[in-house]
Amino acid sequence: MGTFTRRLILLISENFKKIGLSPIVEISERAKQLESEYEQKTGESFIYFQRGEVGFETPSYIRNAIKKYIDGGFTKYPKSGGVLVFKNSIKQHLIYKYSISLKNENILATYGGQEGLQLSFGLLKEKKTLAFGPCWSCMLENIWPYTGTEYYLYNLSAKDNFAIDFDSLEYALKKVDVLYLNTPHNPTGKVFSLSEMAHINELCQKHNVFIVSDEAYADIVFDGTHTSMLQFDNPNSISVFTFSKSFAATGFRVGYTVSRNSELIKLMTRGNYTQTAGVVTPVQLGFAFALHKHELHDEWMNYYLMELNKRRNVLYEELRKFFDIKAPQGAFYCFIDVNQYFSDIPYDDRDKFITDFFLQNGIAVVPGSAFGGSYVGYIRLSFSTLSEKLIRDGVRRMIFLLKERQK
Amino acid sequence: MGTFTRRLILLISENFKKIGLSPIVEISERAKQLESEYEQKTGESFIYFQRGEVGFETPSYIRNAIKKYIDGGFTKYPKSGGVLVFKNSIKQHLIYKYSISLKNENILATYGGQEGLQLSFGLLKEKKTLAFGPCWSCMLENIWPYTGTEYYLYNLSAKDNFAIDFDSLEYALKKVDVLYLNTPHNPTGKVFSLSEMAHINELCQKHNVFIVSDEAYADIVFDGTHTSMLQFDNPNSISVFTFSKSFAATGFRVGYTVSRNSELIKLMTRGNYTQTAGVVTPVQLGFAFALHKHELHDEWMNYYLMELNKRRNVLYEELRKFFDIKAPQGAFYCFIDVNQYFSDIPYDDRDKFITDFFLQNGIAVVPGSAFGGSYVGYIRLSFSTLSEKLIRDGVRRMIFLLKERQK
Repeated sequence: MGTFTRRLILLISENFKKIGLSPIVEISERAKQLESEYEQKTGESFIYFQRGEVGFETPSYIRNAIKKYIDGGFTKYPKSGGVLVFKNSIKQHLIYKYSISLKNENILATYGGQEGLQLSFGLLKEKKTLAFGPCWSCMLENIWPYTGTEYYLYNLSAKDNFAIDFDSLEYALKKVDVLYLNTPHNPTGKVFSLSEMAHINELCQKHNVFIVSDEAYADIVFDGTHTSMLQFDNPNSISVFTFSKSFAATGFRVGYTVSRNSELIKLMTRGNYTQTAGVVTPVQLGFAFALHKHELHDEWMNYYLMELNKRRNVLYEELRKFFDIKAPQGAFYCFIDVNQYFSDIPYDDRDKFITDFFLQNGIAVVPGSAFGGSYVGYIRLSFSTLSEKLIRDGVRRMIFLLKERQK
Repeated sequence: MGTFTRRLILLISENFKKIGLSPIVEISERAKQLESEYEQKTGESFIYFQRGEVGFETPSYIRNAIKKYIDGGFTKYPKSGGVLVFKNSIKQHLIYKYSISLKNENILATYGGQEGLQLSFGLLKEKKTLAFGPCWSCMLENIWPYTGTEYYLYNLSAKDNFAIDFDSLEYALKKVDVLYLNTPHNPTGKVFSLSEMAHINELCQKHNVFIVSDEAYADIVFDGTHTSMLQFDNPNSISVFTFSKSFAATGFRVGYTVSRNSELIKLMTRGNYTQTAGVVTPVQLGFAFALHKHELHDEWMNYYLMELNKRRNVLYEELRKFFDIKAPQGAFYCFIDVNQYFSDIPYDDRDKFITDFFLQNGIAVVPGSAFGGSYVGYIRLSFSTLSEKLIRDGVRRMIFLLKERQK
């Protein structure tokens, strides 16, 4: 038990073997092991800055809707690709938020954004992909190894406030089949502007580059406005959305994928059916209701963004006392360079050292190399799960520790 | 919109293009279109014999548990591979039902049986597969094309009551890497006996053939007992289960996959995480409760199997007045040969003709070729969604129609 016979080693698919473990999951598990010892020893709270989770309850009007459907007999197989009520609700939402009018055949219900991304890259045959670095670790560790995607990072620099040099981007785009774009961006908090999005779209159309646009944080914007790739009339693109972040609903695993090219959605629908037979029926129906009731939707969004914004502001105000950074415009994260405090540690060992150093001092962060090899010595801090007080305490402790290392 | 550019045709993965549409879904949609016209014209009910759906409500004790977890804040990301409460409940159930004691690392929570089967075949690299014919259409049309599996059917014959000739089976097994086994069997209703299962397991171990055991109908047995492949100490096997059929819970999309080889489960866990980030948290927890409370579980099973058995008996008793068949021992289906009534129709057109013939007369069935090319002229009738009265009416109408064709 637990070991392969000679023959079985031969039998395992390469793509399954290549899937990595999420470094974030591993850090979370180590943090949990260390928490009580740290808190007993110091009398201070363990600070979980590493989490991509959302520290709010799913709004009660959505939970109540799901419960109503569970009791109303809506517990049979879902219609392939998404129940009609769900698709109608997405269509209305796309008009309401982006003034885009699409059809049912342009929409697929998925298990969060994750299934939308996995199906998008699974669907593509020639998938040499360019992505902006830093890049969400799940793409690097999970989705691209699983879908057999060869990727290249076009690195953005914190020093330039993650600005894009379009000449060099065009040069890079000529060499690939696909661009993976993520706005609002994890981990930098960059919200790609309308003009940046238009320019990217233009270059991709010019060079026949397909676009997979990950818009998981579409609703989590503090400065500026989210631009969807759907706003451009480009049939060679897929936009992936999820309810996880917008409605603090990570455990319900529901999202949707949209493309102006209905043939792509038709094929992805078959992939979704083959993998899972579709998204849990009463959950689909409940989240259709999440978007359909504009008054309840807007009330939730106002409350939620106001609370998140308070947390963002505390994190940013505390960090800027010590770091030269800009406030994140969207998503849940600050991504900062701490290399100068660890220059004594060899480059190859630095991220492991930084992670352990903070863990031992009651702070969990995600090291930069999780988002691409060029980001060693960076750390990602999430503000979505912590109270303002814990965020403040955490940053102050972190800065104290870094100052100690400088001596 | 809706058409591929030249470049995009090149970009689509072969496996996505090969996925078929389920013939059952198509027949169901046509039936719905014809229903009201048929009922208005004749004053008789349209009979849906084609469905693999379950015509019962999910038990209220499970629905109430899910609702409780939804309101109790259990709406965050699930633990990768399955929450502990879920895995503990499966472990207990495997002891209770099969006297098999396994560990958490042997169990993976999945989206129904479907994701378990897709991950199993996705995981395997050398996957030339043998399956018993007739074979569940979703394997033929969806899962195997998607996972790039080359399959061969070892056809069982209705004339021999679907008995296995082990000499020829051994000969066939020598030429493949994997055996796909489904017991209780869809569409024949065959429940593989303990001695048949032991013999199959022995031959597979002898010839290094990996076993994927689809046990979706494990609880739906009327005559005999379900034997799980887990009862044999074979690390080169995976058993796939679902709650869909056992608890009339098709729309909740929850199941589990078990293997004595924990390395396989570890890799499948990564695949599951990559595809979907895991099964909906409150649903996992609710179904853990489904198994955990033995008294409520047994009460449900007794009621449910008694009701299903009544339906089975009506279907069988009505059919045997006209057909020389045995009663299905398990699952929801009768699979019968109607070739002699359609011998005037060319073989290649026969299944389409039969399907249309019955549809136009208010009866939806699944044609035999959906389960393998050798079963043209067979039909599958499901008894899981219809009342005893509708089953009786349906079979009587069907026999009347066949007698008319004989004239």
